[in-house]
Amino acid sequence: MSFKGQHILSVNQFDLDSIQSIFQVAHSMEPYASRHKRTKVLDGAILGNLFFESSTRTRVSFGCAFNLLGGEVRETTGMQSSALAKGESLFDTARVLSSYSDVIAMRHPQAGSVAEFAEGSRVPVINGGDGANEHPTQALLDLFTIEKELAASGQSVDGMHIAMVGDLKFGRTVHSLAKLLCLYKNIRFTLISPKELAMPDSVLAAIDNAGHQVEICDALEGKLGADIVYQTRVQEERFSSQDEANLYRGKFRLNQDIYTKHCKSNTVIMHPLPRDSRVDANELDNDLNLNPNLAIFRQADNGVLVRMALFALTLGVEHLISKYDCDVPWYTTKSSITSI
Amino acid sequence: MSFKGQHILSVNQFDLDSIQSIFQVAHSMEPYASRHKRTKVLDGAILGNLFFESSTRTRVSFGCAFNLLGGEVRETTGMQSSALAKGESLFDTARVLSSYSDVIAMRHPQAGSVAEFAEGSRVPVINGGDGANEHPTQALLDLFTIEKELAASGQSVDGMHIAMVGDLKFGRTVHSLAKLLCLYKNIRFTLISPKELAMPDSVLAAIDNAGHQVEICDALEGKLGADIVYQTRVQEERFSSQDEANLYRGKFRLNQDIYTKHCKSNTVIMHPLPRDSRVDANELDNDLNLNPNLAIFRQADNGVLVRMALFALTLGVEHLISKYDCDVPWYTTKSSITSI
Amino acid sequence: MSFKGQHILSVNQFDLDSIQSIFQVAHSMEPYASRHKRTKVLDGAILGNLFFESSTRTRVSFGCAFNLLGGEVRETTGMQSSALAKGESLFDTARVLSSYSDVIAMRHPQAGSVAEFAEGSRVPVINGGDGANEHPTQALLDLFTIEKELAASGQSVDGMHIAMVGDLKFGRTVHSLAKLLCLYKNIRFTLISPKELAMPDSVLAAIDNAGHQVEICDALEGKLGADIVYQTRVQEERFSSQDEANLYRGKFRLNQDIYTKHCKSNTVIMHPLPRDSRVDANELDNDLNLNPNLAIFRQADNGVLVRMALFALTLGVEHLISKYDCDVPWYTTKSSITSI
Repeated sequence: MSFKGQHILSVNQFDLDSIQSIFQVAHSMEPYASRHKRTKVLDGAILGNLFFESSTRTRVSFGCAFNLLGGEVRETTGMQSSALAKGESLFDTARVLSSYSDVIAMRHPQAGSVAEFAEGSRVPVINGGDGANEHPTQALLDLFTIEKELAASGQSVDGMHIAMVGDLKFGRTVHSLAKLLCLYKNIRFTLISPKELAMPDSVLAAIDNAGHQVEICDALEGKLGADIVYQTRVQEERFSSQDEANLYRGKFRLNQDIYTKHCKSNTVIMHPLPRDSRVDANELDNDLNLNPNLAIFRQADNGVLVRMALFALTLGVEHLISKYDCDVPWYTTKSSITSI
Repeated sequence: MSFKGQHILSVNQFDLDSIQSIFQVAHSMEPYASRHKRTKVLDGAILGNLFFESSTRTRVSFGCAFNLLGGEVRETTGMQSSALAKGESLFDTARVLSSYSDVIAMRHPQAGSVAEFAEGSRVPVINGGDGANEHPTQALLDLFTIEKELAASGQSVDGMHIAMVGDLKFGRTVHSLAKLLCLYKNIRFTLISPKELAMPDSVLAAIDNAGHQVEICDALEGKLGADIVYQTRVQEERFSSQDEANLYRGKFRLNQDIYTKHCKSNTVIMHPLPRDSRVDANELDNDLNLNPNLAIFRQADNGVLVRMALFALTLGVEHLISKYDCDVPWYTTKSSITSI
Repeated sequence: MSFKGQHILSVNQFDLDSIQSIFQVAHSMEPYASRHKRTKVLDGAILGNLFFESSTRTRVSFGCAFNLLGGEVRETTGMQSSALAKGESLFDTARVLSSYSDVIAMRHPQAGSVAEFAEGSRVPVINGGDGANEHPTQALLDLFTIEKELAASGQSVDGMHIAMVGDLKFGRTVHSLAKLLCLYKNIRFTLISPKELAMPDSVLAAIDNAGHQVEICDALEGKLGADIVYQTRVQEERFSSQDEANLYRGKFRLNQDIYTKHCKSNTVIMHPLPRDSRVDANELDNDLNLNPNLAIFRQADNGVLVRMALFALTLGVEHLISKYDCDVPWYTTKSSITSI
């Protein structure tokens, strides 16, 4: 599959080969992100970074990835500032804004909006999240992180054991990641959630069709011996009653004590971020920050690599990166960072 | 007229010669906007893109135009984020912000504000719209589009027939365009609007003084045989009563059926955008999207060219563009686009 | 003191040597800010410009300073658009956003927040104002301006006489400037404020410890014969009663008449900006705009130089600036500006 000139809208458009192509390019981006060198391959190119819904992390990650390839970023944030509010169709908006850029990254609160926009666009569009629907770059960076973390201990994605924890009903990231994992072999899923927030049947069916093994439970105890623990937030307002919410309060909390008691010594902890660090959040405690297997910040780092790869591939420059290499004359501490 | 170091505040500052200078430079920008090549003539220059009123399209068009010349953009959006809210005068704001840039593009809700700002500025200021007053780059891009579209069928602006349709009372763009057309010869105007939203007397007087021919009417039928049909939005809230609004409901709608029945085969359709595409908008129907004479998106494209020209001229680099040419190593579909 | 890789969080971290290092680099930036030449030393570097509280002037000044060194800027404005609103800790935000940039400038409404953020950051963080606490770059640009203005008449900071006027209780800038001046010798302070808005005891103690001379008064008359008059805004809502406010109404106003009557012929007028220019503001009248000793806009210009210096020093490129020099092919009027 060639990505040149293509839109990146959904995880459904990838097969194993295309994922490996993306990851290979993403790996080759590491020296640029860690500032060992820099490239000007996209010098003069313009990214239209259209965030019709706010998301600091994803927006800046896309912008940074494009800057790291040498390009410029023109940004739009919020709905109010947009002609969409005056009744303009997504087709019209796309037709006009794509005239102002070479590639577009877009987030929008409405499911299906990015695909609709892409139909009017004259340049490749990368989905940065369209409501409850898709967030394919998050799924790719999660999978890239899993592959990289497992490789460090000699394992592969095929045959691994992943525990997904928390709100598996509304958590867009676990749905997309599960779909991507269906491309691999012999994976063991442990799905830990309140009964009210269980993984949807459609995702379960996909996992089953792929021949993977699934265990479903509603408590952590004894269930965290996986290679990967993917934690998500459980929000109280998701429950039908306060009684139900109280029933589960704190049951999905992960901290160093619980890690020591229930996880393997090299179990990798992931989270889509942002992590709620308020004391009553019961999500991922800050005492895990010193645990070298906490991969949540490496996920964010990997997001830049994956987005650089997608820009390079859709603009067809993946083989030209090093041709435009330059020196980095400024002082940096980035290249020496290894743990969190 | 030399534009070097000049402010661009009003259509009144142009004569036919200066317009032709701008358009000549705008034409020379086409290979850069369509990505056949790129230039770094303004590499290191800074545009202060000051949008004290929101306008995604115009803001991004200015920013993109500056990026296409190789420059950087520092952007400010909204009133709240501005010291203007703390009682700072436009003079002070200009004096400070002009210290941070090489040229400024500015939109502000208050008529006259951009000219007032320009008095305090140390760098050229381009008016991106000051309330009900002026929006000179829109008028220039409209005129540039008319000239280009007519040239394609061997016609010139002199002697053409233009129908302006819709809200001609509050439509800033039709006022400014009419003023610019007064510089040309033997133009025939057909002004089609509800009586309550007729073209102001001052504009009619200017058209008359220029020796042009004017026909005024309040319905489309039989009046669309012009070379150019310039459509604008009629908003219900503009009428004094709901009865009056109902009287005109749908009378200014343009769609493919009406086009086939009432227009010439090569009548060009224009609109200042954004177009309201909601079903009850009665503006320009989406079925016109396949009509090759629908020029509304080419207007947006031309806006980039005109703004590039104004930046090049005010910064005195219009003759240096190609000296700073570079290759475009990335894949682009832009250069092959011809219709909508 | 080497600044390479350091955070710039507080005026307390400077001694006289470090200040002179910064000012020496700031002076060397003048040809770049005035567009006699430009540099690409930070071409490809990324500034994370994080303004969790709005401040057009400071935000654009940081961004411009970074652009003038050749770098790119990725910007975040407002609290809403931030994951901080979802309970993310400043540590997490820092850990993620510092992955997207080479250096960070940050403003935040909460005192201490920038230092807390810096603990999680992998790149140098420059404090752009953290609530009532610190705004070190403003203090540095004020001191830089004083040194430069006095040097023009053969004076030095040691031995000078400064009058600080207005709200000395809540005015963050006068506190920080006073602290920096404690590093110098034999300074005479005249502190003019309503009794309710007097300079805090802690600052008075620091001035006293430094061996400086202090006079405290609550009216301008006869007290403006200083080398520097540093004016700040007095806001009516600061008083405990309207009677108290009325008592002081207009007593701290400075205009050309008062200047002529009470100041020396070369007394320099400063103000942290924005200046409230509304007629009832009673701050600094616009008739002072023609007074060559009004230094308020030169302060803003100097802010760019000081911020360029801090970026160059924290990224360790201060000795490489001219190695990356380029020509400025565009027309500029900046290089010839001398007065306001």
